[in-house]
Amino acid sequence: MEAHELGYFTEENSAEVVTGRNKNASDQRLKEIMEVLTRKLHEAVKEIEPTQEEWFQAIQFLTKTGHKCDDWRQEFILLSDVLGVSMLVDAVNSRRPSGASENTVLGPFHLGDAPEYEMGHNICLDEKGDDMLAWGKVTDVEGNPLEGVKIDVWQANDEGFYDVQQKGIQPEFNLRGVFRTGPDGKYWFKAVKPKHYSIPADGPVGDLLNRLGRHPFRPAHLHYIVSKDGYDELTTHIFDPDDPYIDSDSVFGVKKSLIADFKETSDPEKVAAAGFDGPTYWDVEFDFVLAPKKAKS
Amino acid sequence: MEAHELGYFTEENSAEVVTGRNKNASDQRLKEIMEVLTRKLHEAVKEIEPTQEEWFQAIQFLTKTGHKCDDWRQEFILLSDVLGVSMLVDAVNSRRPSGASENTVLGPFHLGDAPEYEMGHNICLDEKGDDMLAWGKVTDVEGNPLEGVKIDVWQANDEGFYDVQQKGIQPEFNLRGVFRTGPDGKYWFKAVKPKHYSIPADGPVGDLLNRLGRHPFRPAHLHYIVSKDGYDELTTHIFDPDDPYIDSDSVFGVKKSLIADFKETSDPEKVAAAGFDGPTYWDVEFDFVLAPKKAKS
Repeated sequence: MEAHELGYFTEENSAEVVTGRNKNASDQRLKEIMEVLTRKLHEAVKEIEPTQEEWFQAIQFLTKTGHKCDDWRQEFILLSDVLGVSMLVDAVNSRRPSGASENTVLGPFHLGDAPEYEMGHNICLDEKGDDMLAWGKVTDVEGNPLEGVKIDVWQANDEGFYDVQQKGIQPEFNLRGVFRTGPDGKYWFKAVKPKHYSIPADGPVGDLLNRLGRHPFRPAHLHYIVSKDGYDELTTHIFDPDDPYIDSDSVFGVKKSLIADFKETSDPEKVAAAGFDGPTYWDVEFDFVLAPKKAKS
Repeated sequence: MEAHELGYFTEENSAEVVTGRNKNASDQRLKEIMEVLTRKLHEAVKEIEPTQEEWFQAIQFLTKTGHKCDDWRQEFILLSDVLGVSMLVDAVNSRRPSGASENTVLGPFHLGDAPEYEMGHNICLDEKGDDMLAWGKVTDVEGNPLEGVKIDVWQANDEGFYDVQQKGIQPEFNLRGVFRTGPDGKYWFKAVKPKHYSIPADGPVGDLLNRLGRHPFRPAHLHYIVSKDGYDELTTHIFDPDDPYIDSDSVFGVKKSLIADFKETSDPEKVAAAGFDGPTYWDVEFDFVLAPKKAKS
């Protein structure tokens, strides 16, 4: 075979011909990434055997998805979310020893400057919704309580909206707060029971979900970032098992280990002890287990 | 295993969980396509193990590619081209019996209404460039000459530009024409030797090529659509083997069988017979072989 023949395209060696052109790439990691992406893309084309019309529909879908993106909307991240890619990227970056709490996706609604409160504070600032007490402890994988853990929590309200989605309707920093554990590793704070909500569904990704017979909802959850020096930062949710969408989260954020216990509690002594007026509140217990920080590879 | 457990995400079964959600899709073909694309995408993520930063760079690349698209520029088609996907889609849609001429990509510069000429006509309307005589015959796969074949030809000029890229500079329909074969299946027309050119390289796709150590050039070629009722329509190029980019076409359009013979000819008798003033011209012989039309599947 003459050397230049490597450069000619055939159906059989299509991926090798394409990736062979990257031999002079200065960025070895980019070269490696493009080698895998090109190979998998060619495998997909060979398995699908798209018509020219189907190929052009794919081009149009990507174009519309790009045109939907602006400073306020990231339709390609939504696409990554509904295809489970965001969760998978999170998973490969947060493998932990057995027993440690699992990660899930960060989502777009975290704020870095939420106020810090004493344990027990009610982060619901507008008194709307069903009272909830969230509590538990933070330990290491051996079960030792961890002191000085930063617990950064945020959640949607009882109508399924975050404060940043309803500026002027919800108070600033509604249903957000930062807490720090004491020597016993325990945490507890008051809030309201969150509600499920739809991801933005008025764009090409929503159209795709619709054509696939899928809904755009996420089951009710609380977001947490749980962190302490020397431990692997935990970005996660805890979920309400009785939510109608618990088994069909549109972005696949639910993991079995992240399903919490949401108990409706009407015992007057417990209501009073939690600091609510009653007659009932939701009692949500969940413990977090932090893994030791991994050495940087 | 409880039925709902199928819905919970794990790194191992990530693709199955995602595609399992499409069970109610009404469009079976879309469901099949998304099953393959999701599986290959997850395989790619598992092999690449991108960091969160690399994932976000990919999101940003796709977003920029979308934002570059408008009525005049299709950056996602360029991306498909430089990754060999356009050629591969063409290949899976134009498999032909051995001996038949091979397809290659259509490209964006075909016009449906080019003028029809008598054989021998010079389609170069501005007398710029080196004279070229293109000729050959069209046969079926048994070698029988085909009469009444429509030969639709278009090409860049000697500076690497198509007429539609230089409106007001090149005459309308410069270096385009339609010819029809007689009973001998022969074709011949006059034009000028085409030149290599760059695909649009001022966008994200050009940046990617640059980071991969690749150039954006296409080797010099003539475009043809060769068609006759009852035969598989042939969309192809023929290439100049002496072009500096013949072994590195940025869109992978070159196939070995499409490399023509470009002979510089100075024999005064041949120059006169071809109808040129001389002292030389380029003699380009290429035969086309049409396959019988495939039954619609």
